[in-house]
Amino acid sequence: MNPKRPYIALTMGDPAGIGPEIVGKVLERQDLRERMGILVIGLEAARPEGLVDGFPELPGQAGFVEVHGPSTWEMGKPQAACGQAALSALQVGSDMAARGDVHALVTAPVCKEALHLAGEPVEGQTELLARWDGTERYEMVAVAGDMRVMLLTRHMALRGAIASITPDSIGWHLDLFYETLRSIGIEAPHIALAGLNPHAGEGGLFGDEEARILQPAIENARARGIQVSGPHSPDMVFLDASQGKNDGVLALYHDQAFIPLKLLSKGRGVTLISGLSYLRVSPVHGTAFDIAGRGIADETNLVAALEKASKWCLTPYPR
Amino acid sequence: MNPKRPYIALTMGDPAGIGPEIVGKVLERQDLRERMGILVIGLEAARPEGLVDGFPELPGQAGFVEVHGPSTWEMGKPQAACGQAALSALQVGSDMAARGDVHALVTAPVCKEALHLAGEPVEGQTELLARWDGTERYEMVAVAGDMRVMLLTRHMALRGAIASITPDSIGWHLDLFYETLRSIGIEAPHIALAGLNPHAGEGGLFGDEEARILQPAIENARARGIQVSGPHSPDMVFLDASQGKNDGVLALYHDQAFIPLKLLSKGRGVTLISGLSYLRVSPVHGTAFDIAGRGIADETNLVAALEKASKWCLTPYPR
Repeated sequence: MNPKRPYIALTMGDPAGIGPEIVGKVLERQDLRERMGILVIGLEAARPEGLVDGFPELPGQAGFVEVHGPSTWEMGKPQAACGQAALSALQVGSDMAARGDVHALVTAPVCKEALHLAGEPVEGQTELLARWDGTERYEMVAVAGDMRVMLLTRHMALRGAIASITPDSIGWHLDLFYETLRSIGIEAPHIALAGLNPHAGEGGLFGDEEARILQPAIENARARGIQVSGPHSPDMVFLDASQGKNDGVLALYHDQAFIPLKLLSKGRGVTLISGLSYLRVSPVHGTAFDIAGRGIADETNLVAALEKASKWCLTPYPR
Repeated sequence: MNPKRPYIALTMGDPAGIGPEIVGKVLERQDLRERMGILVIGLEAARPEGLVDGFPELPGQAGFVEVHGPSTWEMGKPQAACGQAALSALQVGSDMAARGDVHALVTAPVCKEALHLAGEPVEGQTELLARWDGTERYEMVAVAGDMRVMLLTRHMALRGAIASITPDSIGWHLDLFYETLRSIGIEAPHIALAGLNPHAGEGGLFGDEEARILQPAIENARARGIQVSGPHSPDMVFLDASQGKNDGVLALYHDQAFIPLKLLSKGRGVTLISGLSYLRVSPVHGTAFDIAGRGIADETNLVAALEKASKWCLTPYPR
């Protein structure tokens, strides 16, 4: 590989979804192919036109690696064979990324139900890739424009999310977030910790979690050399992030993060996984079975994922 | 009054803050003075130039009503005499609005501490105006662009906010919000109720408040003829609101509302009070004591409040 040119493995996702269509549309963008070497991984029956076999050696080329699977399937439905094909492509792509054959892995969406039909009872791609990478120390980071957000808790009731906030959990996430921000090229990241209560508790008037849990966690992290500020008023910290006033926000619960992320992403939000041995970036949308196969899927989000991956993968900081 | 021309009482707020400066800047905008009759209420020593005494009769004129108070004061500090002057202006303005002498009241910011020094131990203008109007049935509504949000709870710890969500409280707020949206010109308002948990509980996977509390409240409100949908996923309902897909969102806690409001208001957000006998609109910023008297205050938010008030006050629906 040319060390100054990003090489990216791109899995096609579930073939019954919009993955193959948006991958095909992405590859029609000659400017993208000039700037990065893309290696598509998927079923031969869904192979976009004009790709070379295997690794793309020349600027402007894109390559293709075939995985075994069906030659026909029904669009827009979860099917075991499609789930298996998506799994195979992920396995090939993650192996290549872990070995360093490519600089990054970008993944088109899979269907959880199809994975289950294929005998893989996993929650989603994130958990699968972490398992294959042999790590339990991982977390999702969502990015919209200049706003980068790691979540302390995700899919649980708000009451439960509040109950699970501890200094240890915050410290664990701050350390991982700090490493991740460095790995995408931010040399001395400034992390802002969101508060839990209105105005971050307004000096204890509205709740004590800030003084009892968040402040001690901040002090511990600072003692380890992590530049972290807060706890910040939740209604200001994401606005600050969108204006570049911090490098990342650690959010305490799902909607604290996803309300601002969805407002600001405008179809270009991406997620990456902290803690893997390689860089993995994905668009935020799903398989969109309702419009699969109709030629109307929008590749903008996948283009954003490739652009972010190609920007982040050549940083001087080790992952 | 000309029934097709809006007449608006505009209080100058705390004279030690930016109120007098931004009121002066607003009045320099001839286009605003052509479109609405503005009656400024404040201290003679802070009177903007070029105003007629009392009610403005001719297009392009603006009027002035003096309240008693000091002729000098220190800028940027809470002072009893300034608090008293702000109180007097509010009292005059709210009396005029309640009598129907004007179509609406717009208020420049006051300083809570100065009100306290003046012997009025109130939380803020909202509570004061509601008390003078003789109502305990009132609530704040925040508006940013096409997004209109009423809050079920405001300044309390998140744990307490969750604990205080009841079908009765939701029903009370839905009724008031429905009336308010009609009073600002939306004939058949569609209110969206935000959920509490991620994805509004995802069918009970992440919390039971949606099924146990929110759904029954929605059914009750519908039986009373209120068009309400939900509970909606909190990370989608504000995005929907910003795209005009609902007429108002009832939010359950402070940051659920103010994270999106602050992101979208871009200096032009306003608040109105539901439940008063008249229309009252205010900018969202405070007295900005740190920059008061320096000539650098931005009147954009006050202009937005006047424009919204003049649009909303001439609707065919009774308040």
